[in-house]
Amino acid sequence: MDYMTELTAKGKAAKQAARKLAILSATVKNKALVAMAAALAAKQDAIIAANAKDVDRAVANNMPKPLIDRLLLNEARIKTMADALRQIAVLADPVGETVSGWQRPNGLAIIKVRVPLGVIGIIYEARPNVTVDAAGLCLKAGNAVILRGGSEAIDSNKVITQIIGEAAYAAGVPAGAIALVETTDRQAVTAMLKLNEYVDVIIPRGGAGLIRTVVENSTVPVIETGTGVCHTFVDATADLGMAQDIAFNAKVSRPGVCNAMETLLVHEVVAAQFLPDMLERYFKAGVEIRGCNQTRQYHPAVKPATTEDWAAEFLDLILAVRVVSGLEEAIEHIAAYSTRHSEAIITRDYDNARRFQREVDAAAVYVNASTRFTDGFEFGFGAEIGISTQKLHARGPMGLAELTTVKYLVNGTGQIR
Amino acid sequence: MDYMTELTAKGKAAKQAARKLAILSATVKNKALVAMAAALAAKQDAIIAANAKDVDRAVANNMPKPLIDRLLLNEARIKTMADALRQIAVLADPVGETVSGWQRPNGLAIIKVRVPLGVIGIIYEARPNVTVDAAGLCLKAGNAVILRGGSEAIDSNKVITQIIGEAAYAAGVPAGAIALVETTDRQAVTAMLKLNEYVDVIIPRGGAGLIRTVVENSTVPVIETGTGVCHTFVDATADLGMAQDIAFNAKVSRPGVCNAMETLLVHEVVAAQFLPDMLERYFKAGVEIRGCNQTRQYHPAVKPATTEDWAAEFLDLILAVRVVSGLEEAIEHIAAYSTRHSEAIITRDYDNARRFQREVDAAAVYVNASTRFTDGFEFGFGAEIGISTQKLHARGPMGLAELTTVKYLVNGTGQIR
Repeated sequence: MDYMTELTAKGKAAKQAARKLAILSATVKNKALVAMAAALAAKQDAIIAANAKDVDRAVANNMPKPLIDRLLLNEARIKTMADALRQIAVLADPVGETVSGWQRPNGLAIIKVRVPLGVIGIIYEARPNVTVDAAGLCLKAGNAVILRGGSEAIDSNKVITQIIGEAAYAAGVPAGAIALVETTDRQAVTAMLKLNEYVDVIIPRGGAGLIRTVVENSTVPVIETGTGVCHTFVDATADLGMAQDIAFNAKVSRPGVCNAMETLLVHEVVAAQFLPDMLERYFKAGVEIRGCNQTRQYHPAVKPATTEDWAAEFLDLILAVRVVSGLEEAIEHIAAYSTRHSEAIITRDYDNARRFQREVDAAAVYVNASTRFTDGFEFGFGAEIGISTQKLHARGPMGLAELTTVKYLVNGTGQIR
Repeated sequence: MDYMTELTAKGKAAKQAARKLAILSATVKNKALVAMAAALAAKQDAIIAANAKDVDRAVANNMPKPLIDRLLLNEARIKTMADALRQIAVLADPVGETVSGWQRPNGLAIIKVRVPLGVIGIIYEARPNVTVDAAGLCLKAGNAVILRGGSEAIDSNKVITQIIGEAAYAAGVPAGAIALVETTDRQAVTAMLKLNEYVDVIIPRGGAGLIRTVVENSTVPVIETGTGVCHTFVDATADLGMAQDIAFNAKVSRPGVCNAMETLLVHEVVAAQFLPDMLERYFKAGVEIRGCNQTRQYHPAVKPATTEDWAAEFLDLILAVRVVSGLEEAIEHIAAYSTRHSEAIITRDYDNARRFQREVDAAAVYVNASTRFTDGFEFGFGAEIGISTQKLHARGPMGLAELTTVKYLVNGTGQIR
């Protein structure tokens, strides 16, 4: 089957399924999610066998070890995937929520209610757990989903989608609600991005290259997720112990994620007091530091920072450090280099805290906390489909509500205009 | 100046202005809006003189009369434009509104607040009043705006933008906040759609062709406005007097707008009772009827409807009429041909009303009222930048709140993860 035939068939089926999904009760959706979790556990041998094919191919193709590790599935990881579905099952159903309601002078009663988006296309890279996660979240929010994972994980994804798809169907979810694009033809991605007739929104999950390709080629509306060039600014009045703990945590606790800090900005009046210990602590943790000239005075191991470093999302144990003249320069630096994901100030000054939160344009703006909290679970959403770095529709961590839209129900008694 | 130089300069200036606009007080914005209104009135002679150039050119180019009428400005129309600005001035400022807020178990306090989108690009056709309206709404919501009107109205738009821009600046609005693309080079539109570095969102306002061009070519996120193939379904239990008034109003009161009805669906059990009088009333009002075979039995002047008629947005005194077997077939017809704008059922049956509102996928779903109410003013928003027919970000009438996004302010006391 060529990719266009496959996409059209799955798009059409998904669109039909979406109409039924939109009015499916939470009871059925939750039953399906639990059944999907049970099916993953019951059929884990088949998943591990399929995954072995992917891993063997990856080894033969000399895929780097960390990527192979992300691809690999074992009993524990399959259990984690199943647990995620059970957690989604216990979350409140966003569909049907009344967002607001009012009455007009002419007697029309208007209510704004949450409804599913319809058909969501998810384009992602090698991690097969995204397959389960995305399918579960889309289902709970009443959407059909068309998944397009990386070709490296195709054998795992096929088996996983078949297992959860069958379990969902048996529990009352309409056929076509969970679809996987099975062709690994790269042109299928481009075609999917133009499938406006069947797909309501595309969410890319992956590296900067993937996201750029999607944004540049999609005629379907896109929710952009992720790149984070996050900053922490240590102000003149900061509690320097707190500042050190936060700055260390923001860089080191998990450097490969989008909410990790990439650049540390330090007020010049505390630089001499703050930086020597801070840098020492980073070096002990294996962090490479690329600093401005002033930063380099405080430790001989600091490498010189280039302009590219200020704009870099290292996703690694590398940190850019710059001494600034104050709040103004910190805000200017952030405006110039931030990807508007998460930004933090460490301060005891009320006015500076307030100004930083007002003037810094980012999805999440912190006072005296680590940027690492920008996350659907840490925000208390109970789930996360990604972190939006665009301004339309959703900004910051996206939970179930962000996978819905609204409609207006207008009830009258014969009103005309 | 070539178009790319102009766009880059205005984009850069708009982006800088947006940072200042984001923290501008409502007091200053409102003062500016009132000053802009006063300036339009004070300088109406200059506007009328510039508009005369546009109109003369349009006449020389044999522009159709209704389009020339839309282009024409006179004292009364300039007053209407100024009044619109004064109305925007009295609306509540959406910026800074706390949408929600909560505390996490670790003590982090999270609040979600409304902030401006940033820089909005508006691409529209010949009506110069859109220039004033869009500039006023974007300013009130704290956004910079880059306007790209039709080349037919370029002389009017230049003078209008200069007048309101100067008045705004004098009142404290940053330079660059209200920009007009002055080149009439068509390539400027395409380039504007790729101006991701400076523009946060593009809103096209105009016909289906313009909107398609924008959606297909923009890499900047788009809010799609407008086409409406709206239906009214007269159910078996409808109050037929009410149904006739609503169906007449929905078609005839203003046929050229997107919330006007384009197809009337009638339950077969009331067709014989309802349609003869209804059709007669339409014919008396000059409406051309294109009906299904059954509809044609009720009046000799009904023309046969083609498949294209079911999908057509006539925007004229033309109506498609179809007799259906019941609610099920009505919902199927709407799912097949609707543009998901506004749909209505006229019924006295509780279950049918409820089912129609649940199952019909549209921005506004009515029971016993005219689809003509889908409008920012009729909904009570006090303003309207357009009616979104997409599902992301905004759906239905868009007021000031829809010209904003959110950010999360996270306040801690040293939390790390």
